[in-house]
Amino acid sequence: MSRLDAGALHAWQMADCVAHGDISARELVTAALDNLRNRDASINAYTDITEQRALLEADVIDQRRVRGEALPPLAGVPYAVKNLFDVAGLPTLAGGHRGRAGAAPSEDATLVSRSAAAGACLIGALNMDAYAYGFTTENSFHGVTRNPHDPMRVAGGSSGGCGAAVAAQMCAFALGSDTNGSIRVPSSFCGVFGLKPTFGALSRGGSRPFVHNIDHLGPFARGSRDLARIFDALVGLDSRDHACTREAGAQTEAAVLRAQSEGIAGLRVARLTGYFDQWSGPDARSASRAVAMALGAQDELDLPNVPAARAAGFVITASESGQLYRPELQAHYDDMEPLNRDRMLAGSLLPASWYVQAQRFRLAFARQLNAVFERFDVLVAPATPCVATEIGQAWIDLPGGRVPTRPSIGLMTQPISFIGLPVVAVPLPTAGGLPIGVQLIAAPGREDLALAAAAALEAGGNTFKSGSPK
Amino acid sequence: MSRLDAGALHAWQMADCVAHGDISARELVTAALDNLRNRDASINAYTDITEQRALLEADVIDQRRVRGEALPPLAGVPYAVKNLFDVAGLPTLAGGHRGRAGAAPSEDATLVSRSAAAGACLIGALNMDAYAYGFTTENSFHGVTRNPHDPMRVAGGSSGGCGAAVAAQMCAFALGSDTNGSIRVPSSFCGVFGLKPTFGALSRGGSRPFVHNIDHLGPFARGSRDLARIFDALVGLDSRDHACTREAGAQTEAAVLRAQSEGIAGLRVARLTGYFDQWSGPDARSASRAVAMALGAQDELDLPNVPAARAAGFVITASESGQLYRPELQAHYDDMEPLNRDRMLAGSLLPASWYVQAQRFRLAFARQLNAVFERFDVLVAPATPCVATEIGQAWIDLPGGRVPTRPSIGLMTQPISFIGLPVVAVPLPTAGGLPIGVQLIAAPGREDLALAAAAALEAGGNTFKSGSPK
Repeated sequence: MSRLDAGALHAWQMADCVAHGDISARELVTAALDNLRNRDASINAYTDITEQRALLEADVIDQRRVRGEALPPLAGVPYAVKNLFDVAGLPTLAGGHRGRAGAAPSEDATLVSRSAAAGACLIGALNMDAYAYGFTTENSFHGVTRNPHDPMRVAGGSSGGCGAAVAAQMCAFALGSDTNGSIRVPSSFCGVFGLKPTFGALSRGGSRPFVHNIDHLGPFARGSRDLARIFDALVGLDSRDHACTREAGAQTEAAVLRAQSEGIAGLRVARLTGYFDQWSGPDARSASRAVAMALGAQDELDLPNVPAARAAGFVITASESGQLYRPELQAHYDDMEPLNRDRMLAGSLLPASWYVQAQRFRLAFARQLNAVFERFDVLVAPATPCVATEIGQAWIDLPGGRVPTRPSIGLMTQPISFIGLPVVAVPLPTAGGLPIGVQLIAAPGREDLALAAAAALEAGGNTFKSGSPK
Repeated sequence: MSRLDAGALHAWQMADCVAHGDISARELVTAALDNLRNRDASINAYTDITEQRALLEADVIDQRRVRGEALPPLAGVPYAVKNLFDVAGLPTLAGGHRGRAGAAPSEDATLVSRSAAAGACLIGALNMDAYAYGFTTENSFHGVTRNPHDPMRVAGGSSGGCGAAVAAQMCAFALGSDTNGSIRVPSSFCGVFGLKPTFGALSRGGSRPFVHNIDHLGPFARGSRDLARIFDALVGLDSRDHACTREAGAQTEAAVLRAQSEGIAGLRVARLTGYFDQWSGPDARSASRAVAMALGAQDELDLPNVPAARAAGFVITASESGQLYRPELQAHYDDMEPLNRDRMLAGSLLPASWYVQAQRFRLAFARQLNAVFERFDVLVAPATPCVATEIGQAWIDLPGGRVPTRPSIGLMTQPISFIGLPVVAVPLPTAGGLPIGVQLIAAPGREDLALAAAAALEAGGNTFKSGSPK
């Protein structure tokens, strides 16, 4: 197998090839680094390259194979992380630091050390919206991350580097964060698969927080089996994140394999209409309908209170991020990222009664959705209102009206993450050639159902074929 | 047995007498009502008397006994509830309504219907600080509730009617609420036993909320066995309160009986010093030391961060109550209780960043205390900084300084309820003759340990003998 072909493999295929001796971990890492050096000057997904670490990790895997050891599930797979994950020896930027001012952490984030334990090889850190606050990765300090499918368009955000790096085969998977849509939006714009797990399923230990009560971490990859394998490898309790309550032992990859071999007969699917159609452009609506049809959706559902859920998500986001960054706003306002510092300052001054009301509504909305999940296993909605927007684009025109681009790209995602539901974003093709994502939403703890539905879509040939975009 | 003697019995003794036919439920209820009519004109504990209901409930119990049925654990026991519990047909005042403006609920609060199922007979509703916000039950609408041991002094608050009614034998037990100390403070001032259970142990369904994240309901009685029996009868899940997570089947009365017969050898007890000594007057400090000695406390503990816990409790209280009452403040400010409306209005306008920070600190403080409970079973601290204050008293002089009376009576209780720990308030005698309460604080879910310690104090003759105060 040539190195260039290797870059197009899914992570699970890479690990299998390494285990069978078809390719070495060092070859996989070198191929990813070569591709990164060829392409990232124009895409700008990476803010740091950790070549030495990647090669070291790859060599350890290759030596283990030579010794005949059983290899872990992500052996030799090159990956990268949004630059809000701690990586030992590398300053954690969280998209918001000029230059390299901060001290480097001495310890990896929990998900980074678990990835390493699973055999994956870290090749770098990825660009993002400053402080994880945004949907476009137009970062005043580190530049915009361009969409691999169209360099005049954004990659989405806030984990824009993750979506672009996976789409452009500059790594096999990436770890990002999603508070209001920051995994699902770049998955949609870049045409890759993303998993935002249930709130509390994956530890946030050693990652820079943004909104404690809504922050999630999760993987990007080029297929549902990869998402499942990565999730299964990373899940488990961690004393560094007290909100993390899921025990190890998830078996979502088995659910994906079952869905691939046996299909998903019996899966109860509904398509979300109402708000979700009102704020979807034609591409998004078509994709949502196509997915519903492919999954044999039995029903359409007009959920009440969705606009309130989005508003409450905004209030909680502004209040908590404002509280978190208030000391920095007071001491170093001039050094903070100009696109985000003012809205965090404003957020810190919202009245507490708004925040309390938003949290109370959150409980009520979660109960409302729990009742829905007694009738359905998976809900279908677009991941973004439209395909990737142009860099600097100010407005989006939608059936519901003209809306400002930067805050509105999360229209579809925000009401869902607000209550911590697990979602797989699956990329679909559009008439114009660009990808768009669809959300497969499940009940808390049921990543397996959303992943099974995603696997069925892939098996049915319904998903976006990224190939090797130029 | 005469009716007058019967009023001095503990609830468990009353139920046993009824079960054995030594006295009828109707006699017990009539004795309580007689005492109420004799004494409450000067005490003002009751805002409503539910005589017809009480007699009806009593007659049902007496008929069941005549039929030879096994009787429930509180059969024939007269009780009353703070007027923030819904009682079918009786407007719920929550201390904050002029006259009888509100519509009456059609359904009992969950704890009222469970008390009825346990055989207890409801004789009325009890006075409180308006909206449960206060520590003195000096209520502008319904008058002050006087201390049965000294009519020039307050009964404490906000469940002042509960403490006074139980102390003056105008009922055998009462149900109140405790957000920052509202069960423990009137227990201390009135010389009765009070239990503030773990947050989430007793359902708040059908009670008027004040601070959703810190509100607790619980019983007042004249001994620890009563508290245990009542708690065991009331505990259990309830769809009306989603924060209620304790399953039925508590066995705290068994723990009390064990402590009475076998003692509490092996119970690891520590006395809280530092902040708790600094803000305790001589009576409170002596009581805390006497309890520690009687329980064989092995250690003294100067907990860090207690002032921050109290401050955070204030911020959460102001913010959440401000949010809850904001519509009423906007529409009916002039009709709201003047001692509390302004601080709720101010609370609704606190910056959200303060509230978020208070909630984040709450988690950290809870973890700090969880670590302490790996070393100790019960922590001892005063329930109030001093004995009952005088009506209208503006200031309290404490070792730590002169403090305003109304907000400062909760100095000892607020840092504890803030993180939902279970506490039994046990009354001790003081040199001046008035009672003062001591808190026995246990780990979440361990009401049994706090109640066992209280039972040991009672068995050792260490507690305040209320007799029949005049």
